[in-house]
Parts: sequence; C-alpha cells; structure tokens
Amino acid sequence: MPERASRTDRFATRTEGMTASEIRALFAVASRPEVVSLAGGMPNLAALPLESLAVEVAKLVSDEGQVALQYGSAQGVPRLREQITEVMALEGIRAHPDDIVVTVGSQMALDLVTRIFCDPGDVVLAEGPSYVGALGSFAAYQADVIHVMMDDDGLIPAALEETLAALAAEGRRAKFLYTIPNFHNPAGVTLSVERRPRILEICRRHDVLVIEDNPYGLLGFDGQTYPSLRSLDPDNVVYLGSFSKTFASGLRVGWALAGPAIRDKLVLAAESATLCPPTFNQMLVSRYLATHDWRRQIKSFREVYRERRDAMLDALGTYLPPGCTWTHPDGGFYVWLTVPEGVDTKAMLPRAVTARVAYASGTGFYADGSGERQLRLSYCYPSPERITEGVRRLTGVLAAELDVLKTFGIPSRAIARAARSTATARRGPHTPTPDTA
Amino acid sequence: MPERASRTDRFATRTEGMTASEIRALFAVASRPEVVSLAGGMPNLAALPLESLAVEVAKLVSDEGQVALQYGSAQGVPRLREQITEVMALEGIRAHPDDIVVTVGSQMALDLVTRIFCDPGDVVLAEGPSYVGALGSFAAYQADVIHVMMDDDGLIPAALEETLAALAAEGRRAKFLYTIPNFHNPAGVTLSVERRPRILEICRRHDVLVIEDNPYGLLGFDGQTYPSLRSLDPDNVVYLGSFSKTFASGLRVGWALAGPAIRDKLVLAAESATLCPPTFNQMLVSRYLATHDWRRQIKSFREVYRERRDAMLDALGTYLPPGCTWTHPDGGFYVWLTVPEGVDTKAMLPRAVTARVAYASGTGFYADGSGERQLRLSYCYPSPERITEGVRRLTGVLAAELDVLKTFGIPSRAIARAARSTATARRGPHTPTPDTA
Repeated sequence: MPERASRTDRFATRTEGMTASEIRALFAVASRPEVVSLAGGMPNLAALPLESLAVEVAKLVSDEGQVALQYGSAQGVPRLREQITEVMALEGIRAHPDDIVVTVGSQMALDLVTRIFCDPGDVVLAEGPSYVGALGSFAAYQADVIHVMMDDDGLIPAALEETLAALAAEGRRAKFLYTIPNFHNPAGVTLSVERRPRILEICRRHDVLVIEDNPYGLLGFDGQTYPSLRSLDPDNVVYLGSFSKTFASGLRVGWALAGPAIRDKLVLAAESATLCPPTFNQMLVSRYLATHDWRRQIKSFREVYRERRDAMLDALGTYLPPGCTWTHPDGGFYVWLTVPEGVDTKAMLPRAVTARVAYASGTGFYADGSGERQLRLSYCYPSPERITEGVRRLTGVLAAELDVLKTFGIPSRAIARAARSTATARRGPHTPTPDTA
Repeated sequence: MPERASRTDRFATRTEGMTASEIRALFAVASRPEVVSLAGGMPNLAALPLESLAVEVAKLVSDEGQVALQYGSAQGVPRLREQITEVMALEGIRAHPDDIVVTVGSQMALDLVTRIFCDPGDVVLAEGPSYVGALGSFAAYQADVIHVMMDDDGLIPAALEETLAALAAEGRRAKFLYTIPNFHNPAGVTLSVERRPRILEICRRHDVLVIEDNPYGLLGFDGQTYPSLRSLDPDNVVYLGSFSKTFASGLRVGWALAGPAIRDKLVLAAESATLCPPTFNQMLVSRYLATHDWRRQIKSFREVYRERRDAMLDALGTYLPPGCTWTHPDGGFYVWLTVPEGVDTKAMLPRAVTARVAYASGTGFYADGSGERQLRLSYCYPSPERITEGVRRLTGVLAAELDVLKTFGIPSRAIARAARSTATARRGPHTPTPDTA
C-alpha cells in the first residue's frame, strides 16, 4: 500500500540536510567480491582471538546474565568507565570515571555533543576534509560547517586564526572546533606535536570549545602516541574515544570525556536517545579488558595495518601517473590522494567500480561538496595483494581519464554527463546504467 | 579543574527542555535493598534460560565472530528483520523486512521519529499520562506536547477529536499522535478493540500520523493479543517494537516499521545517530529466535508478570484507604493509582522512601507536570511477597498523609515545604536531609 503523500512534506526542516552519504551508497556495490574496495573504513578483525572471546562471553551470560541482559544507567557501566581511564592514560589523559559517558560507538558521542551545543545555524569548525559521519551529525542539527585547511602536519594554526577572525568580523562565533588530531580520517595526517598547544591557545583565546575525536590514536605504526589535546587542556576539550578500532566495531562501544556540566547534559541527551547503552556490550568489553592482554592485541592490529599501509604506499609510488600526490600516514586507516587537475573523482567513481576498484571520492568529506580532485583510499581491510591490485586498477582508470582529458581537453565530469545523456537516450530513463548501479 | 563558565551558557536552546527525569533520579535511592521499589520498569529476567543462551552466544563468537563484531548496515541485520516480521505477525501485522529499521531499543526509534518529524514548537499528541521516555525525546526536539485524556478503555476518541478541533481552530495541526495502545505505560489500560478504528479514522481525517509504541503487546496475561493499529491502517501508522520486554532489555534491540519514505529518513537519521546498531546484539537476538522456543519464553514471562499483577491488585484491594482508585491491567507492568484529593504524590515520595517503598509520582508522566494526585506502581520486578509488603508500606505512608491532611486541612506539598524550611533553618542549607537524599 502506498504511503500517503502528505506524510513526506511534513518532515522536520532538519531532514533537508539528511542525505545518503556517498560512501554508504557505495558499500553495496563495493562489497561485490570482484571489486577491490579501498572505500570503506571497516577495521580488520582477523587478529581477534575469537576462541578465548567465546569463552568469556559465555561466562558473562552464565555468571552475570541477570545484570548483563538488564537495563543499566544512561552514563554507562561504572567498572568499564574505570577501565576506560586506563586506556586513555596511554595518551596522557588523567580522567575520573565520573566524567565519562559511554555511548553506542563514538558516533553517538559526536551526535550528542552536537545535540547539546548546536542550534540551527550555529557555526562548527572542522578540518577540511573531515570525517563524513561528523558532517552527517552536524547536518542533522543544521549546524553551519566551516572547514579549516590542513597540511602534512594537520590543522594549520594560521588558517584557524584567520577563520576565527573572519567569523568575529561578521559578528559570529564558533560553537566548537571538531578535530581528529591523530591519523586523520580521511586525510591520513597527524597534527604535529608543536602545533597542538598553538591550536589550543587559539581556541581558548577565541572561547571556542574543542571536540577531540580520537578513534585511531593507539594505532601509530611505530607504537608512537601523541599527547592528546585533552591532556594539554582538560578544561576546554571534550574527548571522544572508541573501542571500534582497538577491539570490535560491531559492539558499538565508544565514550565521551567531559567536565561535569557538559557531562550532565550528555547523560540527559543519552537518556532520551537510547535510555542506556547496551549493558551486555559494556560488560563484554570490560571482561575483555580484564582478561586479555589488550595492549598486545592493539600491537597486533598495528602490525596488520602497517603491513597494509606499506603495500599501499609502495603501490602508489610504483603505479600512479605523474601529477598525483598523496599523504603518508604513520598510523590509522587512510591515504588521501590528490589527482591531476581536470579529473573529477566523483564522476570517475562509476568507471572505477566498472574496473573493479572502489574508493571514496573527496566530495563526501566536505560540507560544501568540494574535494572533487581528491579521494580517500582505505588500506585497513583488504590483503596487501588486493591493495596492490586495487591501486593498479585505479591507475588504469586514472590513465584513461587523463587520456580523454588530454585528447578532448574537457574535465571528466562533463564526459560523465555526456555519456549519461547518451545512455538515457538509448535505453530510456528508467533503465539503470551499469555504472550508476 | 573547574570547567570554564563560558561553556555552560553556550548550550543549544533544546537543552533547556532536558531535565533529569524524576524516575531516573529515584533509581539510585530505590535500588537500596531495604527499599521495595515499585518505581522502576525493569523487566524480570529470572525466567531467561541463561545456560542455553551462553552456549549460543559462544557459538556466535566462534562461528560468526568476524561478522558479529564488525560494523553493519544502519538499517540492521537482514535476517533479524525477517524474523521481526514473524514476531509482529502475532499481532496481525504484515510487513516486509525492507520496511524495518533496527534501533538501539525502541527508545532510539522514538527519538529518530521525533528527530525527522519535529521542528521546535511542532505539536505532538500523547495520552495523558504518557511514557516518560517519550516525553524526554519530545522535549529534546522542543516539540509541544498536548495530552489527550484516557479512561479504562484507553484513549478517548471524543477527547482526541476535540483536541484536534481546538488545534485546527488555532490554525495549528499535530505532527503525530504518540500512543501505547496495549497495557499502557504508565496507565495500565488498553485501548479497546472498538475504539481502535475510531481513533485511526479521526487521525486520518485530520491528517495526523500515528506512532504506535507497543513494547508490551505480547504480555497479555491471558495470552490475548489485540489488533495492532498498524495492522488496521498500515498506511498511516509507524510501529515501534522492542525485544526489551520479551527477551532482554540489556541488549537494546528495538525497531521501527514504516513505509519507504519515512523508513529512508529513519535510516539516514540512524546513521548520524550511531552509524549502525550493534551487529553483535542483532545476531544474538536472531540466534535466540532461531534456536529457542521464544513464544514459550514469552508465555513464561507472562506468567511471571501475571502472578505479580495479582499480588499487587490483591494488596491494593486489601490495604488501600478509601478514596483511592486504580487501574486493573490485563497485561504489561503497571498500575496507575489515583490518591485522595489533597495528597501530592511528588511531595509524598521522600516520605515513602523513608518508609522503604518507592513509586513513580504521576508528575513525571505529564509534559506540564500535572498528575500530582497520581502515581505509577510497577509490579514487574519484585517478588509477590515484596509487592504485598510494598503496598502495605505505601498504605502506611498514605494514611499518615491523610491524617495530617484531616488534622490541618493542608495539602501534603505545603507540609513538605514547611518541613523543608524548618530542616534548612535547623541544619543549614548544605546539609542533605534524609528524605531528599
């Protein structure tokens, strides 16, 4: 039965900003086995000790099932919050368990932070490019995102200062700066240690709160960690953490660390969002941390990712045509690639998928849809061999693109448009074309 | 280290509506072992087959850990969505798995529905009293809640009609009617079968969407079910379901069923809220449904609750003073009690806790804080003996209250105020009094 038409025009204004992320839409296609997906950010769980986890989870149900399967507090399981302080201590953070709010992945923490701070039209600063899930939350609360430039050392202090000055000149101010200092998603760069106090000083001076999102901080390939922004300025930084990359993303356990006033609001917001995070998952993570050598497990993950990063950088160096530049991550999941002038990565994507390689085009990582000369390559999930093959295929697609560009002198977006209109004319408007499926 | 003062005055406007629910605040006190808590709505999990669940969860990790511990789709695990259609079929709903969105408890479904429909100031209709968690979500999105009266047969059609006419006269309309037709929380009543088509017809005529929240529908004490609103008008009803009361609340698995246009928005909203619901929990529920006789398990739960409902109704009939009236639930968790004129249940609560019994005062269940002559008694969790003892204690508190009222002729709220000011004068403003702890 069809829905009543009247329904759809009654959605809240905020739904106008809710659009399907390009990356998500791509997952279906990219998950075909013949496609090498360098698009998604799925952690590689091959290193997880499933047998000993199975033992622990069974014990959790038999010994503590009556608690683990029951509602809990909105703030989260106290024992886990204690353990989270130990995890954060690895990056220099001293925190009290009372100041931690456990969330359904750090995405929920991000969503709640936006919920409690952003009225429609409020300004949020974020690196350009920025995490697509953050941009989704900002859009859902109708915040106005202003990107601040990065270079190989992360966020540029002068660019931040300039942006804040420009805002002040307009009589506006930013609610917060959202930043991923370590092994940035999607940029693959890390905020240099020298810049950290400068960024914090600028934010403090302009009275801008800092939201530090740090899912990858423990995945530095040489075992290195960087001083967290929270550790440098606990009073002006809300810290977001996650077990998705250091343990298991499918449990959806993340957290926020904030001072009492913000924490209280987060707890209230969490209550109306989900009542409480799953008790079971929290107790499972807690048991895992108590019974397994989790630091060593993180080391195993680092090795998995380092091997893949190496494969990707080798392949990029070997295959890519001149005119391409890319970042050299020393941790995390991603390389950010800039292609030659005239190539439009969003327009090229369907042709890449036809050539059996997928990536995330740069446009998804900017609130204004810029980034068309850029793309994100994830090396976290495929095997090193598949990564090499994927880059080889991508190179073929790029070469073809550059060839057309050289011959006809028109950007790839225009070619795509022309090709699509031909296809439409030939096959009718309702026939899906293979490259848009 | 203190937070910067500037932070707290920068919260979004919506945080003004976010206040700690009275019921939540009470949980800490009510959870002391000497207090009989008739306040919370924690399901009784004693009947759960923990040993066989432990076996299944261990298998889930060893056999499917790589999938179960990984990110999934925002809409939820396909196999579970198929099984959910079988659960809903018990209440007459024919649904396609594609129209189901799995959420972190049905609280999240409710939050997302409000998110996609409500701009600040939009009108939402809800029964009076209504579910406290729903009121929390409505407040978080700054919706304007108008309560519609109920009687023993649930929502009163004439009252709904009248409310909608009054709104129309003001040039306003309601975004949706939020209703719990079966074994209402907190009212303990069920919308009669005769009224269902009338309520739906009125909503249709006034072009008001219906949000049907049905966590207790399978917990009818005689095994009875009622035709769901969704089954009677699939085109104008969004249905919310949950495994919290029929399986395990600590897994936080609920769902929304909606036509494609609304479903698509819900999925997008879910993505920015949590990326995806926990894959692990969804696969565990799916395994449970596949390997256990879940219909029989629901029957066990029903028996647990029926025994407790009987104990409560017996005790209420035996002990309560004249002038009290209460509902007679034939399913679910709650009795709604109206006390004699002059007694203020919110003011009385600290004295009740001192007398070692806790309840939820009526005021938490109305957006405007009315309901002071009412309270909610939950019989779901304590043993029948404890329930009887709890009602006996409550009767003592009520008798004392009525005594004071009879002697001094002033309502209990005024007494409380007078007592508090005396205590403050005597012990200084910072000494907590035992009855407000």
